[in-house]
Amino acid sequence: MDEFELIRRFFSRDAASAGVVVGVGDDGAILRPTPGHDQVHVIDTLVEGVHFPANIDAADIGYRVVAVNLSDIAAMGATPRWMTLALTLWDKDEQWVEHFANGLYSAAAAHGVVLVGGDTTQGDAVVATVHMAGEVGQGSALLRSGARVGDAVYVTGTVGDAAAGLSLLRSEVTDDELVRRFLRPDARVEVGKALRGRASAAIDISDGLVADLGKLAAASGVGVEIDVDRLPLSAAMLSHYDQSSAQQFALTGGDDYELCFTAPAGAVAEFGGITEIGVVTGGERIVCRRDGKRVEVDTAGYRHFS
Amino acid sequence: MDEFELIRRFFSRDAASAGVVVGVGDDGAILRPTPGHDQVHVIDTLVEGVHFPANIDAADIGYRVVAVNLSDIAAMGATPRWMTLALTLWDKDEQWVEHFANGLYSAAAAHGVVLVGGDTTQGDAVVATVHMAGEVGQGSALLRSGARVGDAVYVTGTVGDAAAGLSLLRSEVTDDELVRRFLRPDARVEVGKALRGRASAAIDISDGLVADLGKLAAASGVGVEIDVDRLPLSAAMLSHYDQSSAQQFALTGGDDYELCFTAPAGAVAEFGGITEIGVVTGGERIVCRRDGKRVEVDTAGYRHFS
Repeated sequence: MDEFELIRRFFSRDAASAGVVVGVGDDGAILRPTPGHDQVHVIDTLVEGVHFPANIDAADIGYRVVAVNLSDIAAMGATPRWMTLALTLWDKDEQWVEHFANGLYSAAAAHGVVLVGGDTTQGDAVVATVHMAGEVGQGSALLRSGARVGDAVYVTGTVGDAAAGLSLLRSEVTDDELVRRFLRPDARVEVGKALRGRASAAIDISDGLVADLGKLAAASGVGVEIDVDRLPLSAAMLSHYDQSSAQQFALTGGDDYELCFTAPAGAVAEFGGITEIGVVTGGERIVCRRDGKRVEVDTAGYRHFS
Repeated sequence: MDEFELIRRFFSRDAASAGVVVGVGDDGAILRPTPGHDQVHVIDTLVEGVHFPANIDAADIGYRVVAVNLSDIAAMGATPRWMTLALTLWDKDEQWVEHFANGLYSAAAAHGVVLVGGDTTQGDAVVATVHMAGEVGQGSALLRSGARVGDAVYVTGTVGDAAAGLSLLRSEVTDDELVRRFLRPDARVEVGKALRGRASAAIDISDGLVADLGKLAAASGVGVEIDVDRLPLSAAMLSHYDQSSAQQFALTGGDDYELCFTAPAGAVAEFGGITEIGVVTGGERIVCRRDGKRVEVDTAGYRHFS
């Protein structure tokens, strides 16, 4: 089987959808933007052995490479629309490609995203890159740079679960809610859209809460104080780890793909599924406190090349 | 140096440009499409050791990964606008990244394309993926599927040079016009735009003339006859190879990134730099003839995974 057959067979599902004039199969896809909207473009890569263990199910890789892009779109408050895939494989394993495609389409379909093109190439390890384009009313995208002193700081869902799950996965635990949080992150697309006009700044948590909130604070030129005891921890997390370890995962663990955002008091009062964890200040970038006293944390987060 | 610094330092040149609301630095780029236009989205990957030898200058890799995407945009008759980069590296070599960035920006600037975002990851070999978005008036993009029986078949420039150049490169010849054709392909963006409303179908030559023209013919449901003696061969090619070898490179060699297109008689009469090489028929997909007699050629072209 050659690459053309691979692509035809597994990545040519019907792309008929609003805004898709021509999908997979020509030199490029032809898309029709919605009038009066800005576009959000994001690109993210997963590398075997770096972002995921080599032995996980290809369906999880396909799902995850879509989810991480959905999460970036969500952090901008946009509606995800179209994606293209660049897939580098180490071998021509037909079943692997089928599983990968199933995971990819499953994550995309859940949010109405259509695969409109791609490129499949040969390489020594799996490198999966997805580019995704979303749409948002002109001028209404969420940025990292709008946080103001006095705003409250929130996160969606629970944090630290994915990093704890990866840790369990490395200990060969595979059937666990925390592992599922790592393998199948739910991008907060609906929350992101609901935050337009309410949140002052937003970012998704991919490198860890402290690291990513630090980027938001830097982009906004503000500081943030986090109350460590207010961090939302899952029951699954607390069944595996003591509170101190759980808080460490919550502060520094990556791959959660929850949203972290700032908003003026009362702007998100009716929102469920979010937790207020701190406040925007004019002081240091990130200060963590427990019972009012400073807590030292490793703020490096997850970085490549370091 | 970690990835954030790499990105900041080398891939954060000013993206201020028409249509760029927010460039590199947030969760995604915010772009403002031109009203009344369709978008063309393309994605292409270059893998070290597969698409280029491991020892070539990083500037050539950066240039080339942009050029191959420009070529897909050109084949659709669109104006290239914005691109994102996913770069996987085997190591944190600062000079390599700088050279790569210089080549990338050089190819992009030549056609007014702006880098608006990216993702840098660690891996065992260089994998460079670029997604590019172009714009074209609604409904006026060139497709592969419009060729009609009786149309003439044309190519731009000269063909076979890049494959001959790669062959020389493998023999350690580096300073040669043919090698330059491989390393620094010129995407035919201006020709592509000029073909809107004139060409009936178009494709760019990445896998080889016969292979790519075969895709155009299949998409259009037609056949094509090529007169082998009309293939445009460069002086550089004919200084290295006899006519028969040169024609073989021209028919099956990939990486030229010239355009191949069909048009009704007279539609492109005033165009310079193109050569009529054959005719669209109702017969077999691809027939090559010399002095009216059939010539057998290997039609596989360049394929991965085969």
